[in-house]
Amino acid sequence: MTARILVVDDIQTNRRLLEGRLSAEYFEVATAASGEDCLRLAREFAPDLILLDVMMPGMNGYDVCRRLKGDAATAHIPVVMITALDQREERLSGLQAGADEFLTKPVDDVALFARVRSLLRLKLVMDELRQRQERVAEGEAPPAHEPAPEGSAQVVVAAGDDRTAQRLAAKLPSYVKARAFGDPAAATAAAREGADMVLIDLTSAKFDGLRVVARIRSEAASRNIPILAVIDADNAQAMVRALDMGVNDVVCRPIDAGEIAARTATQLRRKRYADQLRDRLDESLEMAFTDALTGLPNRRYVMARLREGLEGLDRDGEAVSVAVLDIDRFKQINDTYGHQAGDRVLQGMAERMGAALRAADVAGRFGGEEFLIVMRGADEAAALEAAERVRAALEARPFILRETGEMLTVTLSAGVAQAAPGETAEALIARADAALYEAKAAGRNRVMADRKKAA
Amino acid sequence: MTARILVVDDIQTNRRLLEGRLSAEYFEVATAASGEDCLRLAREFAPDLILLDVMMPGMNGYDVCRRLKGDAATAHIPVVMITALDQREERLSGLQAGADEFLTKPVDDVALFARVRSLLRLKLVMDELRQRQERVAEGEAPPAHEPAPEGSAQVVVAAGDDRTAQRLAAKLPSYVKARAFGDPAAATAAAREGADMVLIDLTSAKFDGLRVVARIRSEAASRNIPILAVIDADNAQAMVRALDMGVNDVVCRPIDAGEIAARTATQLRRKRYADQLRDRLDESLEMAFTDALTGLPNRRYVMARLREGLEGLDRDGEAVSVAVLDIDRFKQINDTYGHQAGDRVLQGMAERMGAALRAADVAGRFGGEEFLIVMRGADEAAALEAAERVRAALEARPFILRETGEMLTVTLSAGVAQAAPGETAEALIARADAALYEAKAAGRNRVMADRKKAA
Repeated sequence: MTARILVVDDIQTNRRLLEGRLSAEYFEVATAASGEDCLRLAREFAPDLILLDVMMPGMNGYDVCRRLKGDAATAHIPVVMITALDQREERLSGLQAGADEFLTKPVDDVALFARVRSLLRLKLVMDELRQRQERVAEGEAPPAHEPAPEGSAQVVVAAGDDRTAQRLAAKLPSYVKARAFGDPAAATAAAREGADMVLIDLTSAKFDGLRVVARIRSEAASRNIPILAVIDADNAQAMVRALDMGVNDVVCRPIDAGEIAARTATQLRRKRYADQLRDRLDESLEMAFTDALTGLPNRRYVMARLREGLEGLDRDGEAVSVAVLDIDRFKQINDTYGHQAGDRVLQGMAERMGAALRAADVAGRFGGEEFLIVMRGADEAAALEAAERVRAALEARPFILRETGEMLTVTLSAGVAQAAPGETAEALIARADAALYEAKAAGRNRVMADRKKAA
Repeated sequence: MTARILVVDDIQTNRRLLEGRLSAEYFEVATAASGEDCLRLAREFAPDLILLDVMMPGMNGYDVCRRLKGDAATAHIPVVMITALDQREERLSGLQAGADEFLTKPVDDVALFARVRSLLRLKLVMDELRQRQERVAEGEAPPAHEPAPEGSAQVVVAAGDDRTAQRLAAKLPSYVKARAFGDPAAATAAAREGADMVLIDLTSAKFDGLRVVARIRSEAASRNIPILAVIDADNAQAMVRALDMGVNDVVCRPIDAGEIAARTATQLRRKRYADQLRDRLDESLEMAFTDALTGLPNRRYVMARLREGLEGLDRDGEAVSVAVLDIDRFKQINDTYGHQAGDRVLQGMAERMGAALRAADVAGRFGGEEFLIVMRGADEAAALEAAERVRAALEARPFILRETGEMLTVTLSAGVAQAAPGETAEALIARADAALYEAKAAGRNRVMADRKKAA
């Protein structure tokens, strides 16, 4: 896996050294000699990762990191801070400034590349989602960097025995709701049911933590939960292995509560960003298939379902029927009682349809005051019955129109047609429309089947 | 990186052996003893990858692969076929059946895991996109497995010198349009401009092909182009390295034209699937922000842009104004000339707005016959001018209504308001609405500014 990496260090020798090593591994490298250069190149070079020296004259690494994470254009780029000293305070300041990772000079290649691979794998997926969202709606994407959420984060703690699990859980910040498990199967099950993070002990001889990691990562329900692993301080190999397996971050024994809190906050923040991004995308996509007024599927959606039904008929011979429903004298309702009353009638129609139909039926707003029901596995008789249920439900419950307090009985007419093998969606709907026309002509408030049938 | 792998082999010893090796690497493994079991488990176990034995009694591996790739529910799962014989015909049959890769028994762990990592990395991203799409619109996703496209595939061929590049290009199937480059920079540039595949020679001492791979992969414009690499037959290490760097597939020297054709077809098919998936997602997302009738941005979109403008005002003091425009006597047009004529007027209004406004202005359909223009950097005077240009443009070009051949002059009224610092979008629009009301009251076909101004 290759990537664009921005190396930031005020000392030229350091820049050259890192650039050389990264370049030998076929990374594309740019360098910056100051915080200001870094902020500029973070936008211009669009790196996939930033290696950021802490000690720089002028703007120091912490300030640069805060600025990067505070800017919507650069907040999503992972930042690995690099310092000369392995001191607790340095590490904490870096993590609190929003750094994704912290490495000590001299930087060990194996550790560095394991980190880089792990962060890049995540970024690959997030970039795809961000791009989709950005293309259509700049400014609609959620902010990538927000303060760590306080309150309701659910963390699953997994260790080789209950006592170790509980002791680990006690190290977590107090705003986290931790559940401790000494049993791997129980921990996996808990993650599957939903968690914001998993904290797992990889230092126990009593249980194979990586097996639990593998299980969590390979199941769809838990695949995206961040995992923070506990390893021994002197075990670089375990760290590399863990990161390559899909662990998101590691914390070393002996465990420092401040560090575990900072790393937990980073993971929770990242998860929340990813969740929001997915949610907003799903929401936007749903809107593309939903009628805003009634909340029903829109024309595009029901037509796609109808085409599927017709394919099913041609493949397996499964019957499919449609009903086109039209509210009687809707224009008159609008003119007499106003647009808002008309809207309420359409919404009420959607409710009554929902209550009167099977779960398998797909009912959508087709446009204006017209609705379409697609019924798989229903022949003409069954479809007539279903449409009749909707008609009766609408007629039975008059609308109370707030403006006047007046009760208004609304009726509908409907046309039903069962698909013939090979028939197109358009031809089928045209037949249902013809039946609807007859129902209207025969005095409205009735359901009729297509008389001509398919050719 | 971990994953769910389905191992399919009729001989129990073989299954056990592969299962043990994969499991030791923390993969989650399920096994199937026959083609029928494989087809069932491909749905139930939902593997990320299938290792499929060719020689099985009953349904052989080729048939199983064809069935997997022909079923929309399983077509996206990568299939690696495994055979006892390394014969050209076997390889070709497997690739033609839709297999993503072909390995010979005994399976070499290093080669296997490199393949698995490479295929999984791709699947990770595609799964995210597929899930988004599927959640809202089953059946809307494009088919994952279609015959290789004939015709217009563009392939960039990169080698150490022009002659080698041209000789490689000559090996490609004739339906491909190949461009050969002996210069790495030219090849990278060509890929950036757009290609369906890159074929690259990694066997030359004259040029560092992996550097070209890295560059193609690290640039946004070429990141998603499949890369097929040429390596020496005896160089397993080069294969692993290439796959880990982001090469999608390799073909060994001496080059077999049949094999390069089959592998090219696989890459082109995969790229087309990915492109279609991205396109449909983007299309769906766009629909969530677009008014179907006029093609204009919808209310949600213009409101988001307006809120951005108001943030800009509060942050940088940049002026922002809105205009609310309403077509005069639209109901009468609808009633007299019919719905279709009304629709044409709305569409015409959208055209005239587009022509009369600056590129920076955002004009959307707000609902019914009402439109909203958001103008950043425009004070009240500039906004009045812009709205007046739209008003004049609408009045100047009457509509020809097809039904009667009659010419109809349509006019609009508009209200304009400039935002005050700290003002909400709703308050601003309410002021523009008030101005619109005055314009209507004053006799229509005119633009007025809000008289009260903001508090």
